[in-house]
Amino acid sequence: MLLSVKESHFFTDPRYGLEASAEINCQVHVAKGSLMAAAAAVIKRKRLKKIGFETAWLKHEEFVKLKDEMPLGVSLIPVGPVIEQQRMVKSPDEIDRIRASVRANSEAYERVLRRIRPGVREQDIAAELDFQIRMQGAEKPAFETIVAAGIRTALPHARPSARRLEANELLLIDMGATLDGYASDMTRMAFAGSPPKRIRDMYKAVLEAQSAAIQAVRPGIAASKVDAAARGVLKRYKLDKTFVHSTGHGLGLEIHEPPRLGKKEKTKLEAGMAITIEPGAYIEGVGGIRIEDTVLVTDSGCEILTPTSKEFITF
Amino acid sequence: MLLSVKESHFFTDPRYGLEASAEINCQVHVAKGSLMAAAAAVIKRKRLKKIGFETAWLKHEEFVKLKDEMPLGVSLIPVGPVIEQQRMVKSPDEIDRIRASVRANSEAYERVLRRIRPGVREQDIAAELDFQIRMQGAEKPAFETIVAAGIRTALPHARPSARRLEANELLLIDMGATLDGYASDMTRMAFAGSPPKRIRDMYKAVLEAQSAAIQAVRPGIAASKVDAAARGVLKRYKLDKTFVHSTGHGLGLEIHEPPRLGKKEKTKLEAGMAITIEPGAYIEGVGGIRIEDTVLVTDSGCEILTPTSKEFITF
Repeated sequence: MLLSVKESHFFTDPRYGLEASAEINCQVHVAKGSLMAAAAAVIKRKRLKKIGFETAWLKHEEFVKLKDEMPLGVSLIPVGPVIEQQRMVKSPDEIDRIRASVRANSEAYERVLRRIRPGVREQDIAAELDFQIRMQGAEKPAFETIVAAGIRTALPHARPSARRLEANELLLIDMGATLDGYASDMTRMAFAGSPPKRIRDMYKAVLEAQSAAIQAVRPGIAASKVDAAARGVLKRYKLDKTFVHSTGHGLGLEIHEPPRLGKKEKTKLEAGMAITIEPGAYIEGVGGIRIEDTVLVTDSGCEILTPTSKEFITF
Repeated sequence: MLLSVKESHFFTDPRYGLEASAEINCQVHVAKGSLMAAAAAVIKRKRLKKIGFETAWLKHEEFVKLKDEMPLGVSLIPVGPVIEQQRMVKSPDEIDRIRASVRANSEAYERVLRRIRPGVREQDIAAELDFQIRMQGAEKPAFETIVAAGIRTALPHARPSARRLEANELLLIDMGATLDGYASDMTRMAFAGSPPKRIRDMYKAVLEAQSAAIQAVRPGIAASKVDAAARGVLKRYKLDKTFVHSTGHGLGLEIHEPPRLGKKEKTKLEAGMAITIEPGAYIEGVGGIRIEDTVLVTDSGCEILTPTSKEFITF
């Protein structure tokens, strides 16, 4: 994409020519060679002098190609996440789509959860979840669905494996849908049997941390304060050192958008932001607990979009 | 990753710390801050002077971060696809895995094909294919499965939509599995009814082009010659201008690896390369045909790994 105040240009290769022309309402350029050369040709023709580029997205190689094509006197200026920042506050239409994505995701979860029994493999649960997400109208999972059983729950981003869920084991499911372009994100825990006290206590602590973070969400609060609310609760339970990621992130067209709800993030929340709240505690050799909702910042505080129960499911 | 002649270092963040240590047999560094800063610290400690970096993979932003951390006198040297080139010729173990991936993919296709009827949506076919790929033991689809019905088959990379396959329409399925880390890739066509002569003729031409390209595959031939073999047949049928992509690509750990079987690719094929052969013809408003196999270059020529029939399926 090349954007100026007056016009916008989209560059693609011949494989996507027809589709781009049908779906995109800006000037479509179908380039036979390098997209960077095609963009450079437009820059030259329009006599543009200052070109900002997204430093977090452009590959070094593409940058070099673009620079090589630029006439002397044209400056390339690295710019940060300006597009992402503009997208932080969602429009009512975008919020509707996120709601639909959240609903589809939760419905898929419910349909699969009731059919899980000890003996089933993580990867079979993940395949079934991904299938059900699409049966609910989503285009695809918003990210690689995480299903972890037993001590593998201590891996915050476990990839589903051939490991089977055994009796008396924890189960972690972290899943999201992309529906109509918009992402949702949810994590829930279950236990195959009767959870021992240590696990129940961990669950209770993480749930309390998640509630505290949600209660902190309101317009004007720094993202770091929401993170601190979760961390403070976990500290009381001596679990703060086991919480190795941030409390959440924005989501929308992408599964990870700003703001990040981390220790140092000064961004102030605003009504219309869609974020996740997902504290966790992970103990190697024992297991991990994470509880996550998709939440909308509202004028008066927030609305939890995720309708799924946060009861600690046992079966 | 930071590789020197003597040692290899892997950098990750705390979310992946446990998993990386368990699965990777090189030095694992769990960085709390930026991975580039962590890599720079090792570079400084080891007093490395010349650092090659992969220009096609490093983001401009990461490059700038790395550069900012380097002491004076250390040079950063952009390098091309050296890793990808080393991976072009597969080991016997890798070939076994590609075979398994191809088999799983074809089996999933067969299971779904027999259940497709007019009235079903593209996206439901895609969801079922992706589910069956995983039921065959694959981790995931190797790319976003393409299912296109009717005139949407003229889009070489159509994304599955809510459009339903109608009676007397073409159906294009392009799918691959990632199994045990390795990709497969296949495209097949079907027709819901009795295909009109124009479509039958297109199918015959593309199949002939695909056979000609496969027959050209042998060690020592330039990739461009294989592409030319397919293009030559399509030219005889006046379809060469409708063939808007290259004839194929290498595959392995990634779905697209060198060599590219395109007009200008001088790379000579070698025994042990796994490639796709996938010519196509696309006519806007009418439809498109693509036929694709995964093929192994052998000492004497090639072996078609894909076991699926290339008969023009009608139902």
